[in-house]
Amino acid sequence: MNYFKESLKLHEKNTGKIEIISKVKVETRDDLSLAYTPGVAEPCRKIYEDEENVYKYTSKGNLVAVVTDGTAVLGLGDIGPKAGLPVMEGKAILFKEFANVDAFPICVDTKNIDDIVKTVKLIAPVFGGINIEDIGAPRCFEIEERLKKELDIPVFHDDQHGTAIVVLAGVINALKVVNKKIEDIKVVINGAGAAGTAIAKLLLSSGVNNLIACDKVGILYRGIENVDDAKKELAKVTNLENIQGNLADALVGADVFIGVSAPGIISQDMVRSMNKDSIFFAMANPTPEIMPDEAKAAGARVVGTGRSDFPNQVNNVLAFPGIFRGALDCRAKEINEEMKIAAAYAIANSINEEELNENNVIPSALDKKVAANVAEEIMKAARKTGVTRV
Amino acid sequence: MNYFKESLKLHEKNTGKIEIISKVKVETRDDLSLAYTPGVAEPCRKIYEDEENVYKYTSKGNLVAVVTDGTAVLGLGDIGPKAGLPVMEGKAILFKEFANVDAFPICVDTKNIDDIVKTVKLIAPVFGGINIEDIGAPRCFEIEERLKKELDIPVFHDDQHGTAIVVLAGVINALKVVNKKIEDIKVVINGAGAAGTAIAKLLLSSGVNNLIACDKVGILYRGIENVDDAKKELAKVTNLENIQGNLADALVGADVFIGVSAPGIISQDMVRSMNKDSIFFAMANPTPEIMPDEAKAAGARVVGTGRSDFPNQVNNVLAFPGIFRGALDCRAKEINEEMKIAAAYAIANSINEEELNENNVIPSALDKKVAANVAEEIMKAARKTGVTRV
Repeated sequence: MNYFKESLKLHEKNTGKIEIISKVKVETRDDLSLAYTPGVAEPCRKIYEDEENVYKYTSKGNLVAVVTDGTAVLGLGDIGPKAGLPVMEGKAILFKEFANVDAFPICVDTKNIDDIVKTVKLIAPVFGGINIEDIGAPRCFEIEERLKKELDIPVFHDDQHGTAIVVLAGVINALKVVNKKIEDIKVVINGAGAAGTAIAKLLLSSGVNNLIACDKVGILYRGIENVDDAKKELAKVTNLENIQGNLADALVGADVFIGVSAPGIISQDMVRSMNKDSIFFAMANPTPEIMPDEAKAAGARVVGTGRSDFPNQVNNVLAFPGIFRGALDCRAKEINEEMKIAAAYAIANSINEEELNENNVIPSALDKKVAANVAEEIMKAARKTGVTRV
Repeated sequence: MNYFKESLKLHEKNTGKIEIISKVKVETRDDLSLAYTPGVAEPCRKIYEDEENVYKYTSKGNLVAVVTDGTAVLGLGDIGPKAGLPVMEGKAILFKEFANVDAFPICVDTKNIDDIVKTVKLIAPVFGGINIEDIGAPRCFEIEERLKKELDIPVFHDDQHGTAIVVLAGVINALKVVNKKIEDIKVVINGAGAAGTAIAKLLLSSGVNNLIACDKVGILYRGIENVDDAKKELAKVTNLENIQGNLADALVGADVFIGVSAPGIISQDMVRSMNKDSIFFAMANPTPEIMPDEAKAAGARVVGTGRSDFPNQVNNVLAFPGIFRGALDCRAKEINEEMKIAAAYAIANSINEEELNENNVIPSALDKKVAANVAEEIMKAARKTGVTRV
């Protein structure tokens, strides 16, 4: 199938992908009097008396804003808020299909951080959660941090944390397959943008001790100059031996490679320089950092990509629907580190021990039970960390 | 039925009234590849190449934002953006049920005019139209004017123009019943807020020559001091003889009374002071300026209210769904005066000559053919005035 041609047809035929429907009947005069005036005044009054009632009488508690400025859309880059809309609508329908979360695209027509933060805050009354999407690094970091601080509803940048959670799930299961412990492994991440940074931080929170982050300039180390502040911050918590060099240098003796970078940059020689039973998540799109068969031929044991036509697809749809389902259901005020780790284990544990093997460390993106598992574990972790409101 | 109690139950049982669903199937791997990555990149690219393609490949062209700051919600007043949400959701489902327009509530958490205008502008990429709702006067005037100027999609403040259009429709038909001409009548409007001001302006555009606007301070006249600028502006285009006095003074010899004011302020003596075959639209909610039976007993011929349990209900649902349906279908850049008048005639003409009588000058709010008639006439008027884009 020619996905591009067929996708164009699908979008044109339906004129987009989302539709807003009524959950209540509007046929008789009485229906109108209950859903609208005069009856609707009563839920309004109840919310005016106690703001928390907004969760009881409106759709807020099930509504997530998918917020973008269109600066880092898929592999397309800075295409603007209108051109980003098909992706945001796609995200919205995945929320609905996988976890019955109602999601609405908010494509803001500015790149100014203050304006984006302010706009989202001002329209927040309607939403139970904020999913930030396809906003370029390093701007996305500040936007997420500020919104988290200033809003009392969960804020989650999926390109960072959704990806990180699914990668962690894959790493957890892959380590079972190769029989290594997370504390003992050496991990190399290539690409220190939004996703790479979040993956690094989540792996560190999850027990990884030895982690080196690389970017176009090579290994990130303390004292590095020609990179942005976010990357300097990352260098502070990674690369404990503070080595310098390029990606090939970093990979020598590594157990895990995680690529959120560029097609074909990993050679078979680089794979050979790694530890036995190495693990690869090569997620450059559409062409991975190394093709799975080449990596395997050079000694890799587990290989995952971002693509659906190879085993072990890292697909965020395994994470974000269940995460928001769980967070909304317990009215979590935030999605914290413990909740993210719990989500990763829920995804990993959605594959039984018996089914687990090197070609099946990440569940299928279409496996809808994963979202339910994630939601359950998110709620448990939210309760444990005391961030729930019901 | 106890509308308040039952409405509360309905809202709680469904947890609000809106739901966002997918227009496309998301079951197989291919479905995912077309609705989301990698296929979705192609509609994104097409929009990036030509922004107008956003209407072809996304839901924008059928999406209306229902924007409020919660300062003038129903009869409840300034209850804030969260407490206003049940009304905005109600509006959204009426859009869908009556005209298949997808509408989404935007409840902004500020009363600052600049911030409201900026917020709506920044999130406009997703929407094909803006419906302003329940924002208090005189702030609503400036917000509407600025958004109309700065956006290339139709902006419509329903409390002003929706009400005005339905009232004009009622006046058009009532004049047929009493056999008077619009040029010859004297109209008195009581209540110079958002609705009253818009009604006055639309009646003047439609041929009324003799119109007096009153407010709490009495008749508005040129030179009046203790009112806001919007009311002073209104005084400039009404009350040609520039009389002063109270509502009772204004009503002497009037043919039409239009009340968007307070319960019970019209006495039977005031009705008796008017011309023969007088017409009343007494829309104070929930209790009209005068009860229909009292007005009739004192000589009024046609009486309408805002209530569904009396004849001739002035209900905006007769206007806004069809207006946006028409405006979206021809991608109108604005909703201008000619389009509003066309909408009023479309509503009026939805009642056949044979069915027309003093208790049937406004179609039933449940008559769904009205929206289709309005949409058709809106499109014709938009074409005639050159504001369409397709």
